[in-house]
Amino acid sequence: MTENTVEFGGQQLTRGDLLYEGKAKQVFATNDPSIIWMHYMDQVTALNGKVKEEYSGKGELNSSISNLLFTYLSNQGLQHHWLGSISATDELVKKVDIIPLEVVTRNYTAGHFVSRFGVEPMQQLSPRVQELYYKSDELDDPFMNDSQAVSLHFASEADLKTVYGLADQVNELLVALFNKIDITLIDYKLEFGRLADGQIILADELSPDNMRLVDQKTGKSLDKDVFRQKQGDLRVGYQDVLQRLQDALK
Amino acid sequence: MTENTVEFGGQQLTRGDLLYEGKAKQVFATNDPSIIWMHYMDQVTALNGKVKEEYSGKGELNSSISNLLFTYLSNQGLQHHWLGSISATDELVKKVDIIPLEVVTRNYTAGHFVSRFGVEPMQQLSPRVQELYYKSDELDDPFMNDSQAVSLHFASEADLKTVYGLADQVNELLVALFNKIDITLIDYKLEFGRLADGQIILADELSPDNMRLVDQKTGKSLDKDVFRQKQGDLRVGYQDVLQRLQDALK
Ligand SMILES: Nc1ncnc2c1ncn2[C@@H]1O[C@H](COP(=O)(O)OP(=O)(O)OP(=O)(O)O)[C@@H](O)[C@H]1O
Ligand SMILES: Nc1ncnc2c1ncn2[C@@H]1O[C@H](COP(=O)(O)OP(=O)(O)OP(=O)(O)O)[C@@H](O)[C@H]1O
Ligand SMILES: [Mg+2]
Ligand SMILES: [Mg+2]
Repeated sequence: MTENTVEFGGQQLTRGDLLYEGKAKQVFATNDPSIIWMHYMDQVTALNGKVKEEYSGKGELNSSISNLLFTYLSNQGLQHHWLGSISATDELVKKVDIIPLEVVTRNYTAGHFVSRFGVEPMQQLSPRVQELYYKSDELDDPFMNDSQAVSLHFASEADLKTVYGLADQVNELLVALFNKIDITLIDYKLEFGRLADGQIILADELSPDNMRLVDQKTGKSLDKDVFRQKQGDLRVGYQDVLQRLQDALK
Repeated sequence: MTENTVEFGGQQLTRGDLLYEGKAKQVFATNDPSIIWMHYMDQVTALNGKVKEEYSGKGELNSSISNLLFTYLSNQGLQHHWLGSISATDELVKKVDIIPLEVVTRNYTAGHFVSRFGVEPMQQLSPRVQELYYKSDELDDPFMNDSQAVSLHFASEADLKTVYGLADQVNELLVALFNKIDITLIDYKLEFGRLADGQIILADELSPDNMRLVDQKTGKSLDKDVFRQKQGDLRVGYQDVLQRLQDALK
């Protein structure tokens, strides 16, 4: 069990109201309005929540992987929301106003991209593809283009330029890191948000729940596709990713 | 019946092989490899060809409207493929390599945009929305963004800039014209192509088959939506549009 109160950066932080319970995380307020307390759950979902299961230890794996990746990005100078881990499943992050767009980067063809455009899977995309999806459970996260996002006032053209620039920085860094541990980063989803002063930074999580990762030696999936395609216990792959990242980043 | 041979710009042009028969037009070669002979058919389709009907005189209405609109755009200095009308249903155009993208401009919310994003219909969009659809009957013309179009090599970033710039010029001119005749230009589809020297110009047709037009006084549709929604004889609206354009442009 995580304590309700932690000491963080010389300040006493207490977990407050549950602000939001998503499909993978619980988001709590703290006594500092600029800081949020995030708890990673063991729940795994697919098809926008229509399929749901519990895998004990999954929250811990995702929290550990996410923390390693945010620390790595910090060390490379990237701005993001992550402040620190406070237990195996809980972390503190800077509170942002989430831009209601999922920002997907694709380095290789897979999934919807393959069926939508009639291309072969696992083909390298050059340049990488960047996509936006409107975060809306009711509408099933519809794919949208920049012009739509601007006209519907989700983000300005300048915001999108910032978001895409940050996503490209993240991509370069993550591709290099995963290559080092013999994993191909096929595609993944990022979220961005605005700090009180308006600065746009990377938020949410960086875990195999939101990435397609393929072992370069065996060709096997090390991500949530194992769950989506009922190919066994997804924790085996997550554990493998965590182990390799720990070895590479120590 | 249209003759097989016409005199055009001091040159004798003969209709050659049928190069392509689409859902609305037949495209023939001529003895001049840079010129194409287009015939407007009476066929009307919806749902990507799944619903089909004949309306005698529809080809003539579309050809007349398209010719009026291309002439209007020429007079305003816009580059396009239209060379001249050679009969009530046939025209000569510059042959281009069609960029396989449908370029949609939306000035008001309607159709898919409404269901996809959960917005009210007939709301003005500011700025106007620009969208790309990959011209592929097998794939059902999937919506795509700029990044996908570039990565799949349909067009370069520079090409897209040119295409969007031309589409915006067309939009400004068409909105102004239709407003003058009490019609709201809700949305429409354009196609662009490359001349032999690489220049990108506006191609295809400009007709109520590819536009949503609403009478500002009655709120009635004057376009193919009348057919899609089985609201009667679409020719009534097309005839009305033609008449108003003739009055405004004479
Ligand atoms: N720094 C942050 N400040 C505020 N909210 C955040 C921050 N980082 C992430 N969030 C939001 O917290 C929630 C995390 O919960 P979870 O990942 O379980 O959501 P989800 O089920 O994926 O649903 P959603 O569609 O809302 O993302 C998300 O809504 C995410 O946008
Ligand atoms: N200037 C041009 N040069 C060459 N081809 C052209 C030109 N203008 C239009 N076309 C093409 O001619 C065809 C016109 O036929 P039609 O409008 O009936 O096609 P369609 O059924 O809409 O199918 P498509 O999906 O191919 O557009 C289209 O494929 C269009 O791209
Ligand atoms: Mg999430
Ligand atoms: Mg057509």
